[in-house]
Amino acid sequence: MRPEPGYLRIATEEAFAPAELVALWRSMLADGPADDPGFISLQGFYLRSQAERPAAVLARLTDLGDRRIADMDAAGIDRQVISLTAPGVQILDRDRAVAMATLANDQLAEACRKHPDRFSGLTAVAPQDPAAAATEVERGARELGLAGVIINSHTQGEYLDNPRCWPIFEAAQALDTPIYLHPNTPPRTMIGPLLEAGLDGAIYGFAIETGMHLLRIITAGVFDRFPRLRIVVGHLGEALPFWLYRLDYMHAATVKAGRYEAMKPIDRKPSEYLRSNVWVTTSGMPWAPAIMFCRDVLGPDRVMYAMDYPYQYVPAEVAMQDELPIDAAAKKAFFQDIAEEVFRLLPDRPCYLTGGVPWLWKDSMVFRPQAWPLARSASVQVIVRQSGASTSRATGLASSIRLPPGS
Amino acid sequence: MRPEPGYLRIATEEAFAPAELVALWRSMLADGPADDPGFISLQGFYLRSQAERPAAVLARLTDLGDRRIADMDAAGIDRQVISLTAPGVQILDRDRAVAMATLANDQLAEACRKHPDRFSGLTAVAPQDPAAAATEVERGARELGLAGVIINSHTQGEYLDNPRCWPIFEAAQALDTPIYLHPNTPPRTMIGPLLEAGLDGAIYGFAIETGMHLLRIITAGVFDRFPRLRIVVGHLGEALPFWLYRLDYMHAATVKAGRYEAMKPIDRKPSEYLRSNVWVTTSGMPWAPAIMFCRDVLGPDRVMYAMDYPYQYVPAEVAMQDELPIDAAAKKAFFQDIAEEVFRLLPDRPCYLTGGVPWLWKDSMVFRPQAWPLARSASVQVIVRQSGASTSRATGLASSIRLPPGS
Repeated sequence: MRPEPGYLRIATEEAFAPAELVALWRSMLADGPADDPGFISLQGFYLRSQAERPAAVLARLTDLGDRRIADMDAAGIDRQVISLTAPGVQILDRDRAVAMATLANDQLAEACRKHPDRFSGLTAVAPQDPAAAATEVERGARELGLAGVIINSHTQGEYLDNPRCWPIFEAAQALDTPIYLHPNTPPRTMIGPLLEAGLDGAIYGFAIETGMHLLRIITAGVFDRFPRLRIVVGHLGEALPFWLYRLDYMHAATVKAGRYEAMKPIDRKPSEYLRSNVWVTTSGMPWAPAIMFCRDVLGPDRVMYAMDYPYQYVPAEVAMQDELPIDAAAKKAFFQDIAEEVFRLLPDRPCYLTGGVPWLWKDSMVFRPQAWPLARSASVQVIVRQSGASTSRATGLASSIRLPPGS
Repeated sequence: MRPEPGYLRIATEEAFAPAELVALWRSMLADGPADDPGFISLQGFYLRSQAERPAAVLARLTDLGDRRIADMDAAGIDRQVISLTAPGVQILDRDRAVAMATLANDQLAEACRKHPDRFSGLTAVAPQDPAAAATEVERGARELGLAGVIINSHTQGEYLDNPRCWPIFEAAQALDTPIYLHPNTPPRTMIGPLLEAGLDGAIYGFAIETGMHLLRIITAGVFDRFPRLRIVVGHLGEALPFWLYRLDYMHAATVKAGRYEAMKPIDRKPSEYLRSNVWVTTSGMPWAPAIMFCRDVLGPDRVMYAMDYPYQYVPAEVAMQDELPIDAAAKKAFFQDIAEEVFRLLPDRPCYLTGGVPWLWKDSMVFRPQAWPLARSASVQVIVRQSGASTSRATGLASSIRLPPGS
């Protein structure tokens, strides 16, 4: 047993799959109706390969109990934020997708209730039916107590920048719940030269497809329409942090030249949305140079730990990140505090606006007790929850807020 | 006039296009036979847009004389390494491509002869005809005095990892001439969701297509077959440096599981080829955090300056790189020495093996006068050029080599 590090390790991109969904995928692979070469490549491999790693992945994916907890103990993980693995329900037809998302969320919520000190979960949705998805976002947040939303990138070639899908963003913003944008294999219209070289999956295809998806969301103006929307992306932001300068330069040049109907002016530079509405996790990227680079260019409060269990269940990678060249407080933020804030893992704390009205509050900015005192001119948002149901918001200056005694 | 910085600024990814090729592209766009949505998007924009930036780019592209030199003077660029812009001849049918490559190379060589102190050039080839391309690599190196080879990524969906194309690599290795792998828009089988969002070009599509191309070359074992092949990639390596850890991890896992016919074991990790056979330039990425990251993870001798003229003719970006937080020797290496070595811009220098036989020599390792004395046990390669034509090589220990007097 390694010594206590002085922080909880919260792993934020950890996968599961209900046995019912795996069975459905199997039948789709066998029957041949899955008209998606990426799905066939990805789950055809994991569900059929006899090799050691894919077999171990599959066995662990469907476990939401003792085996998972034993693995967490062995690796020193205190809490997993668990989400439905790719492509989740997004490969299914609409009605089956909606039903399977409900089933998956019920199973995951049940496991979280059973292991409240070890598991948190994200709400799976079927973007095939945006209205149903928005309703499920709300059910996940309010009834199931889930900590965010998982979307496994494109849905049969459709991307979330399509305004048809925006009810999902609207619900996530209204409920102050983050969306984890997880990779999928590229769609049929993108996968060609990747698949023929064996590069369609986690080695490269995942990253470029999901990076593109986030870029589409940014350049379509989603964050202008939903300024408090929060998105989490794995694999250190799918390399978008590397491209910050070029994204800003080329976006400005392209918009100015009026090159595309699809790329109209937006309120801010792409890099600004990445630094204000997006958080990145280290899933699959336990590598100090890239982690430190992202902390540098996005801000240290934007980068948090993830393992990518069970796909990359490598306890040595936890130790690599324990050794990051940052001080104890920064390490606690990296492994614990940022995840607690982004996924609202801590109970609401009471606070007061001057005038003495007692409210329960959470802010939708990066807020942390140890950051007090806030600059008195900082603008903060107060979310007022009444009877745990209806929610209202007010924005005010930090100078008008005080914490309750003992905070 | 800014003060002399103490180094030459050599810009290594600078584009031109013969007027004859531009006219051919125009007719292809007008006649509609160009069955490539990326070409239509890219050159349809540059050849038709009335906006300021594309019009300025087009005017500068076709100039190999006074205007270019005036721009270089204004930006403080001492030398351009000039290459045929994307998609070059690679969009043409085979016979026209071979002929147009010859024409482009003749024009470029003529300009280099006219301005030997300001211009160097790269040899364009038509991968549509690998044998003709290999012959042109040789003509470019031996007869035209060009400094390397330019390939604008895929050729109508074909990639250089296809063994059909390997005569090009064979010629480049034999002639000790580097290949610059420049972006192209993604092919029809990849461009779908990029194009519909306006992300197919320099903002993102270029990068992911070319990064994939280099990965294909690595994972296909090209560098095992041609261990002295040298490849240069722009835009700081098209983000592959960001992915070093993940590439190694996922490549090993994928090979071990036997997932793809196309991904067999290779001799080394992907990151090792990137650190030994590949150099990156800063075209379009004049941003210190990403430059310093690449220097850190690839090695400082792997990262050199480029402007991406005329597409990104921004003199202020030269000043940004003058201010990199590195010492004077490292800055000279970044702007000058590495380019001089990689593109063999310096005349061969005579040296001697002990025993006194006078040979002209160049090493195929990173070699630099200020690095002397080499460790006596270092293995170096000596290339013997006889009468400037036939070439032979010998490998020996540094202890058996001495530089001529005055070196």
